[in-house]
Amino acid sequence: MTAYDIIKKKRDGYELTKQELDFIVQGAVSGEVKDYQLSAFLMAVYFRGMTERETLDFTLAIANSGDKVNFGEIKGVKADKHSTGGVGDKTSLVISPVVASLGLNVVKMSGRGLGHTGGTVDKLEAINGFKVELSREEFLSVAKKTGLSIIGQTGSFAPADKVFYALRDVTATVDSIPLIASSIMGKKLTADDDVIVLDVKVGAGAFMKTLESANELAKVMVNIGKGAGKKISAVITQMDEPLGTHIGNALEVKEAIAVLKGEVKNDLYDICKALSVEILSLSGYGDVNACENAFDYAISSGEAYLKFEEFITAQGGDLSEILNGNYKAKNSCVVIADKSGYITRLNAETIGLSALSLGAGRTKKEDDIDYLAGIVLNKKLGDRVENGEIVATLYSSNENLLAPAKDKFLSGVMITEQQPKFTNKVIKYVR
Amino acid sequence: MTAYDIIKKKRDGYELTKQELDFIVQGAVSGEVKDYQLSAFLMAVYFRGMTERETLDFTLAIANSGDKVNFGEIKGVKADKHSTGGVGDKTSLVISPVVASLGLNVVKMSGRGLGHTGGTVDKLEAINGFKVELSREEFLSVAKKTGLSIIGQTGSFAPADKVFYALRDVTATVDSIPLIASSIMGKKLTADDDVIVLDVKVGAGAFMKTLESANELAKVMVNIGKGAGKKISAVITQMDEPLGTHIGNALEVKEAIAVLKGEVKNDLYDICKALSVEILSLSGYGDVNACENAFDYAISSGEAYLKFEEFITAQGGDLSEILNGNYKAKNSCVVIADKSGYITRLNAETIGLSALSLGAGRTKKEDDIDYLAGIVLNKKLGDRVENGEIVATLYSSNENLLAPAKDKFLSGVMITEQQPKFTNKVIKYVR
Repeated sequence: MTAYDIIKKKRDGYELTKQELDFIVQGAVSGEVKDYQLSAFLMAVYFRGMTERETLDFTLAIANSGDKVNFGEIKGVKADKHSTGGVGDKTSLVISPVVASLGLNVVKMSGRGLGHTGGTVDKLEAINGFKVELSREEFLSVAKKTGLSIIGQTGSFAPADKVFYALRDVTATVDSIPLIASSIMGKKLTADDDVIVLDVKVGAGAFMKTLESANELAKVMVNIGKGAGKKISAVITQMDEPLGTHIGNALEVKEAIAVLKGEVKNDLYDICKALSVEILSLSGYGDVNACENAFDYAISSGEAYLKFEEFITAQGGDLSEILNGNYKAKNSCVVIADKSGYITRLNAETIGLSALSLGAGRTKKEDDIDYLAGIVLNKKLGDRVENGEIVATLYSSNENLLAPAKDKFLSGVMITEQQPKFTNKVIKYVR
Repeated sequence: MTAYDIIKKKRDGYELTKQELDFIVQGAVSGEVKDYQLSAFLMAVYFRGMTERETLDFTLAIANSGDKVNFGEIKGVKADKHSTGGVGDKTSLVISPVVASLGLNVVKMSGRGLGHTGGTVDKLEAINGFKVELSREEFLSVAKKTGLSIIGQTGSFAPADKVFYALRDVTATVDSIPLIASSIMGKKLTADDDVIVLDVKVGAGAFMKTLESANELAKVMVNIGKGAGKKISAVITQMDEPLGTHIGNALEVKEAIAVLKGEVKNDLYDICKALSVEILSLSGYGDVNACENAFDYAISSGEAYLKFEEFITAQGGDLSEILNGNYKAKNSCVVIADKSGYITRLNAETIGLSALSLGAGRTKKEDDIDYLAGIVLNKKLGDRVENGEIVATLYSSNENLLAPAKDKFLSGVMITEQQPKFTNKVIKYVR
């Protein structure tokens, strides 16, 4: 078996065997298959695609390319939610304590943000003292005690994906459904969750711009999960505008807390409910009605928020600064509507890039984050706005970043006289 | 302009500009475009192809990526013939002195052999004292004096092609018509010939296995040549069996001399005549009839052979050993027909590999060549053979190589009762 033969076989449209896919994945990690061969392979996959069987085998090879987490010691159902990435997406901070408070275990490895999308780990690090780097023992001890632990991903999990991703990023082979699906699921399957619910974003701020491609990606990932023996489904959700009203790490923690406390019932709440119900349902909690009632109860009883506090405390975090309202950026400016009408465009990607330019994100992996930087929206898509009214407030620890970020923000906003049609944030379920 | 954007544009099927192709080619040489990006680009070209304009621009960029030879000081028409590579192909040794004896200039950079096909430079080095590495001054001085000089290719010509070729070889992106055409023509266009005639081989021993692909390659190369302002045409010739009867470096020089002396009129003679007539015709020598007569005259008058001697002597070669008949390998063995019938298969690739295994060629670039090793065929495709008759003689300086080479040889030969249909060696002209 040689890399040459495998590339040629894929190039010519034949289905690769499990052994051939293992050879490529293991060779990527060992360096035996050279990067220029891997990139030719990835481009051939871009053109030829992969069958369902190939995609599953390729994903499992990625998942098996490094360490795996065994949750065996944790009793009960282990559930996870994964989002394909969006702007203002703090659903993990809400859903995880909700379902943990209802008796499920959420033992989660999360990523950091890059570009216009944020990462759960960065958001948690905005909380004073919170530790995302725990040893396996600490991590499992928190999970056993509270039913909920979230840590950062380390290089020892799915190392093949890191090799592939770095190459795809510079060789125009990112947007291939089997490659995206195997990258996401290859990482996800390094943990032995019983239940996985995928939040596949579609729209201006999402990686998938069309419903067709989001649907295809969702189907492929769900098939991989089923092939790997998981209970899995996907929810396709809209990401034209940012999710909720707060963008930026500390700001998003605040909004998540408000939802957990039942103070806010917005689109973030709706999507968190839909995803939580999906997780509970797959976990055998009961019918949809029972799961919906359980979600409402977790919020209204305060159990979900208590679980959140318990988890944050267990990982060394101190919420007092966030809760007392003084934990905000030194500098801010408001964006004012220059005419009256309806918000018909609030482009999630543009607003994500505006938040990034305020210091809330990273353009390079090595960049430092300004945890207090970000944006709070006073208006959402479809809202009525009057001339002179505040549309949003921008925050940054660096005053000089406000003006250019405001320009960026404005380039993503449109106000028209006609009210746009309302679109449901939860578009479709793929089961 | 970034490599990423160019790869993506080609991947998505758009036509690249001259500037973009220059960027890739120059980046390949400078190392600014990484090898893993180049291989992704090459795979995208494999799938998307190149338009006529792109292929020309890409080829010119390759030709311009290093040194170029200016023949400006040489008066008269400068002509060259290029073959896509076959077994027993010593046409350059015949055609070059023929057309030089008729007043044209042949100033030729030739390659070495690799795998089952030979290279003109290796054949010439089989001649005692012959120098293939001349300085530009020596080279042009020989050409000015005799109208004929042949030297080895050096790394300073078309260095981009070397980068691309090495990558294509290990990433399954060799068999792409625009990539093959630009590789051949990119090297060819480093010299400023007026006339180029291409010998595109098709069949079992050729790179192009089907007439369709050979025809397509010929058309693309002819178009490139015309786009570069050359008088150019291609002759598609059959390479199912080896060309002529002698395979191996010194052996091929002997056969070329026999053809030049008018002693042999076989398929080698026919193809040399067709290609020479094509060169003469493009050079304005006269109509086809006049060119054919000129070829016959060059041979029958002895002028072509004298030109050959003059050229060999000018580059330090001494033909006496070759001519006195004692210049042959120490060991030999014969291949005997084990039944009577007609030769219906004499697979050029298999016989080329048999010669290679006798020491006549290289499997790796660094390998030494046994100049005396090779094969002499007593029978050709379609010939009648009787049980016990000699089909071929194998030569090697290493006795141990004979037996396995004979087995290899036999695997490429078939004798049947039915006489196969005769196929003309010159299949088609592409002008």
